[in-house]
Amino acid sequence: MTIDEQRLLADLHALRAIGRDGTGVHRPALSDEDIAARRWLMERMRDAGLDPKMDGLGNVLGRTRNAGPAVLIGSHTDTVPHGGWLDGALGVAYGLEVARAFPDLAIDVVSFEDEEGTFSSCSGSRAFTGLISPDDVADRRSADGVRFGDALAHHGIDNRPWFRLEPSRYRAFLEAHIEQGPALERDGIDIAVVTGIVASQRWKLQFSGQADHAGTTPMGMRRDAGACMIKLAHQLLTSFEQAAAANTVWNLGHMSVSPGAYNVVPAAAELFVEFRDLDQTIVDRLEGLLQTAIAQHRGAVDVTAQLTAATDATAMNEDIITTFEAAAEACAKSSRRQPSGAGHDAMYLARHVPTGMIFIPSIDGRSHDVSENSHDHDIIAGCAVMAEATSRLLAS
Amino acid sequence: MTIDEQRLLADLHALRAIGRDGTGVHRPALSDEDIAARRWLMERMRDAGLDPKMDGLGNVLGRTRNAGPAVLIGSHTDTVPHGGWLDGALGVAYGLEVARAFPDLAIDVVSFEDEEGTFSSCSGSRAFTGLISPDDVADRRSADGVRFGDALAHHGIDNRPWFRLEPSRYRAFLEAHIEQGPALERDGIDIAVVTGIVASQRWKLQFSGQADHAGTTPMGMRRDAGACMIKLAHQLLTSFEQAAAANTVWNLGHMSVSPGAYNVVPAAAELFVEFRDLDQTIVDRLEGLLQTAIAQHRGAVDVTAQLTAATDATAMNEDIITTFEAAAEACAKSSRRQPSGAGHDAMYLARHVPTGMIFIPSIDGRSHDVSENSHDHDIIAGCAVMAEATSRLLAS
Repeated sequence: MTIDEQRLLADLHALRAIGRDGTGVHRPALSDEDIAARRWLMERMRDAGLDPKMDGLGNVLGRTRNAGPAVLIGSHTDTVPHGGWLDGALGVAYGLEVARAFPDLAIDVVSFEDEEGTFSSCSGSRAFTGLISPDDVADRRSADGVRFGDALAHHGIDNRPWFRLEPSRYRAFLEAHIEQGPALERDGIDIAVVTGIVASQRWKLQFSGQADHAGTTPMGMRRDAGACMIKLAHQLLTSFEQAAAANTVWNLGHMSVSPGAYNVVPAAAELFVEFRDLDQTIVDRLEGLLQTAIAQHRGAVDVTAQLTAATDATAMNEDIITTFEAAAEACAKSSRRQPSGAGHDAMYLARHVPTGMIFIPSIDGRSHDVSENSHDHDIIAGCAVMAEATSRLLAS
Repeated sequence: MTIDEQRLLADLHALRAIGRDGTGVHRPALSDEDIAARRWLMERMRDAGLDPKMDGLGNVLGRTRNAGPAVLIGSHTDTVPHGGWLDGALGVAYGLEVARAFPDLAIDVVSFEDEEGTFSSCSGSRAFTGLISPDDVADRRSADGVRFGDALAHHGIDNRPWFRLEPSRYRAFLEAHIEQGPALERDGIDIAVVTGIVASQRWKLQFSGQADHAGTTPMGMRRDAGACMIKLAHQLLTSFEQAAAANTVWNLGHMSVSPGAYNVVPAAAELFVEFRDLDQTIVDRLEGLLQTAIAQHRGAVDVTAQLTAATDATAMNEDIITTFEAAAEACAKSSRRQPSGAGHDAMYLARHVPTGMIFIPSIDGRSHDVSENSHDHDIIAGCAVMAEATSRLLAS
């Protein structure tokens, strides 16, 4: 038994047609296109001999009719606005194809709802793993102002029960995804075996000084919020680089000053800082460097820092990591271990069942954009590795 | 003969009532309040024995009926939106009071229109000195979208001729102003005798990189426009400080990045840079440091720089400087020489007639805001010095 490459690609192109937006897809969670894609998926699951159901949140789970511990394979079929055709869809299509290729194995397939956070990031997998309940999310609203509960009612699913993970049912959860970065392509590697999903912190820094006439106020008498931000930001860039490990990433994604004129000394400034690493001690070290920088630069200009988000690192299961590596080798594909810098549904599944992920190369590292793409041969290779690993896990 | 302190203060408070905005004034050029203030000024000029006229731009000139070379004293009575009560008005009120106090001296008084640039900065004094003609400014629009020519027509003055400076008529042009900065108050000095108006340059820097996922794109593969801006801006702050003279000032008044999210590497950034010094060689040196920084930081991120404004330094007349110093001493007021970091109508007059300026202390250095203020004793001291200097210039 083996995967059908053309059937796999045909599925992905069929999904791409639902909410097509040029070369990409616009299929935000609970849009009509999202629900249409989920109903299409249920049909394919039925064709594959699975028993598909949609829950009260939009999660679609296709259960195997075979006995024994199962492997759950999947990801999500919702997209960011004007996103790519493979983000999420790839992992779901792999599950469908592997289940079809191995009709005698116990394989469940899942598409979680709203991984991309149209209403609330990973609400599907967080609900599935018991982290949230209906009351937590019903009143969440999309950027367009649509209420989550109303969107569920619009599709007639608001009164359905929510699926709950049965940990004893599963040998493993496996999620494949595009890399969303350029490293695999640059280095000519076929498969990344994900070691874990990084810990991250997001900080909002606010600088409060005083507006003054920039022509008539001597330099020594200013309380320049913008200059303070530049000095602090420069220290972060320098000290983070020294403290970083090979895979540490950080970003100063937002900077602004006000009032924002040539001849007015900035009265206020704002800076967003984010950093991620699989190793919590590195994340803690960068947080320490941030606090040091704030303490050093606070003075005439007041500096406040607010931790707006923080996630812990999630390790992937070591047994599954080695199984993916062996599967890649058996498929004659190169692989290497790599952390995931982005969050995925696997973060929540990993708390309850042995979980593993693989990435396939993204062309030019493009992601969350209609330009996102991967080569057919990479898409096929990833599915072959997923099939081989699934087979090995269920045989062991 | 001497100035009447209470009459001077009464004039300033009468002007403050026209367009009053809390403790400040809202009297933008060619607003109904601005024209009302100019008509009020013409009445006061007439009371003082001057012959007042308004020209086709809103400039108000009150000519003395006395023979002989005259001294022209004045400034402007328009304000920035929601501005202070003394910026401009002080210099005009001084002219009025000195002309009244010395009815036998040849003193003209002027209020130039639109010094603050509601339509076009210093258009009144630039027209008066022949730098611009009606065609140059008729189509300029205010931030509210009002056309300059239409505003003139609204007040029925669009068909009037424009005044032109007769250099041979004047012994000197004298302008008093609030300091708009905190240095005099800090140092306990009564009067600044302005040595010149600084040269300045304004640059708009634009950084063009590439947006990437900040979790999945390795640091070494980014084209981060924001980080490039921080490094370049930090180099400017450091190198400008080393190259600066005592009175050099600079400002990085605007910074922004886009798209501006925690998890997106900045694709583009924008930075405003301004620097000023009375010494053109210092301004040239800072420009050189700016170009060096751009050359050093341009690379993966493209950096372009546009010179959006540049003014040359304007020296005040040395004879008038020493006259102001002697006048201050005669009035028992402390004085010191100081450059003007801000532009004034005197910049344009100085090209044609001997020109001098004095500043009085601003409380807390506040300017271009309703909180702008000066102590009554400082307002009175400045006028006494202006009267003494005028008397000396016309006697010499």
